[in-house]
Amino acid sequence: MKKLINNPENVVKEELEGISYAHPDLVKVFFDPNYIVRADAPVQGKVGIVSGGGSGHEPMHGGFVGMGMLDAACPGAVFTSPTPDQMLEATKAVNGGAGVLHIVKNYTGDIMNFEMAADLARAEGIDIESVVIDDDVAVQDSLYTAGRRGVGTTVLAEKLCGAAAEERRSLKQVADLCRKVNGWGRSMGMALTSCTVPHVGKPTFDLPEDEMEIGIGIHGEPGRERMKVKSADEITEMLMEPIVKDLPYKSGDEVLIFVNSMGGTPLIELYIIYRKAYEIAQKHGLKVVRHLIGPYITSLEMAGCSITLLKMDDDLKKLWDAPVKTPGMRWGA
Amino acid sequence: MKKLINNPENVVKEELEGISYAHPDLVKVFFDPNYIVRADAPVQGKVGIVSGGGSGHEPMHGGFVGMGMLDAACPGAVFTSPTPDQMLEATKAVNGGAGVLHIVKNYTGDIMNFEMAADLARAEGIDIESVVIDDDVAVQDSLYTAGRRGVGTTVLAEKLCGAAAEERRSLKQVADLCRKVNGWGRSMGMALTSCTVPHVGKPTFDLPEDEMEIGIGIHGEPGRERMKVKSADEITEMLMEPIVKDLPYKSGDEVLIFVNSMGGTPLIELYIIYRKAYEIAQKHGLKVVRHLIGPYITSLEMAGCSITLLKMDDDLKKLWDAPVKTPGMRWGA
Repeated sequence: MKKLINNPENVVKEELEGISYAHPDLVKVFFDPNYIVRADAPVQGKVGIVSGGGSGHEPMHGGFVGMGMLDAACPGAVFTSPTPDQMLEATKAVNGGAGVLHIVKNYTGDIMNFEMAADLARAEGIDIESVVIDDDVAVQDSLYTAGRRGVGTTVLAEKLCGAAAEERRSLKQVADLCRKVNGWGRSMGMALTSCTVPHVGKPTFDLPEDEMEIGIGIHGEPGRERMKVKSADEITEMLMEPIVKDLPYKSGDEVLIFVNSMGGTPLIELYIIYRKAYEIAQKHGLKVVRHLIGPYITSLEMAGCSITLLKMDDDLKKLWDAPVKTPGMRWGA
Repeated sequence: MKKLINNPENVVKEELEGISYAHPDLVKVFFDPNYIVRADAPVQGKVGIVSGGGSGHEPMHGGFVGMGMLDAACPGAVFTSPTPDQMLEATKAVNGGAGVLHIVKNYTGDIMNFEMAADLARAEGIDIESVVIDDDVAVQDSLYTAGRRGVGTTVLAEKLCGAAAEERRSLKQVADLCRKVNGWGRSMGMALTSCTVPHVGKPTFDLPEDEMEIGIGIHGEPGRERMKVKSADEITEMLMEPIVKDLPYKSGDEVLIFVNSMGGTPLIELYIIYRKAYEIAQKHGLKVVRHLIGPYITSLEMAGCSITLLKMDDDLKKLWDAPVKTPGMRWGA
């Protein structure tokens, strides 16, 4: 295992220390239990938005804490659900009196622990809504999931709901928006290589030098099929076609295309994937009105990519363009 | 070779097509010769800034074209210098009457071709200044370089000079600023793995499973030493100590720390490196006033990192914070 780490047991703690050194203007980092909140939390009268999940998917979620996106993130150990006490403390820290939305990726441990945290927070008088993201069209059930897995749409939901909360929309409105985004987003991923969980020390799975896996999960969960490595254009078709069919997106729809690196795939390759994804979208009559290209929901150093398509409307476009200031996503008005 | 590409000969062309589909609001892409200019070029009365070099280091340089940074970038083939005609066309396209600055990384081919392009542009009546970046403290001469190689400080110089040009500083002022930034910046990198140039098809060098190389160049040029893989903290010390000694930075100096991924190293590891780099800077009495963490000057999918330290002053802080809107670096006021 070749990684830039010290003791594998300390990876998350030391990463959080690095974040606390780098971004004191944007976030506050708490330890034992571990959670990250925006520096000015709680924002009075604003819906708080909390997400979280296993570490190893950086910048998601900790890198998305800040103005215009998340109020708090709860990082678990690598590929391991955070605990209810992390979620409860984060929820209390960002409660500005307008309630708190939990954005939860559909993994059994995350669901269970966020439900427990929501119950505990409600017992303390905080209004909670929870929305589960389950956008991965690759497989129906999976290693850690009943139903579809939650992947790339999570990043988009966090941006869009964060902007809606900044506008002081109500808890019900922000939660309904999150459900709409989940309903309009579809994703699928693939891997060229495995990744290695630091405290495990060996690759999560074996993939021969000439093979790839289509439909892989972000923890290396099995996908749809293993096959010989194909060209970027063929791979893009294999990801895009099931996505486009699933919603189904219709000719004339406006869409955002999100091409994501699994961690070890560089930007030059992502643009080659984006090129073909854009052409396929056009072929279907879809109008590409926004995009996101880069490593945003990763699987440690796994080589590969995922594509997410999100149907857009005027409200979503306005929310997408709204300012955001977080360690991992930042732009002006 | 596992990559998300089609024909290895078409990697740069298809990447540029992807960029042209994604960012028509920010840049215009030209083919044969290949260059990228900001969408509103030429900006009348503003110094134009042009950089370029071999592809394979994305987002540098093409991803840095836009308001507040570069006016144009010239991408060569992977790890191959662009040609004088690319540079000349780019220079003419961004000349707004206030002259054009060429920011050139110190590689023999880049130097030679940018000199030729500067001569040709001057013959057409355009004022040109050229500044060579040579900030890599690892080795004195190298495979493609007489003197020190140009690496991470290039990214910082492009941001800072871009902001100065937006303020309508003169060509001489922007060029002097670039020289100052080069004089105040020091870098060193390391690799855990090699990378593979697409049209070569096999790794640039062999590095055994338990070894790393300290002082590597961004094209895989030999560094200082190969050794068994060490901990992140030890690696950070091996990079930081030669950097800090070289300027020499003094106790009380304000600095920016830039921790860069070579392409295949994920963000979670960069924060662990940043954590130790910050602590080492503090130990030396340096005040860390700004930072940059992420993949900005990469070497295809190479795993590893580089650290750049830049001495800062009030002017550089103001320029660093100025708005920027490019595909690869974007923030508001």
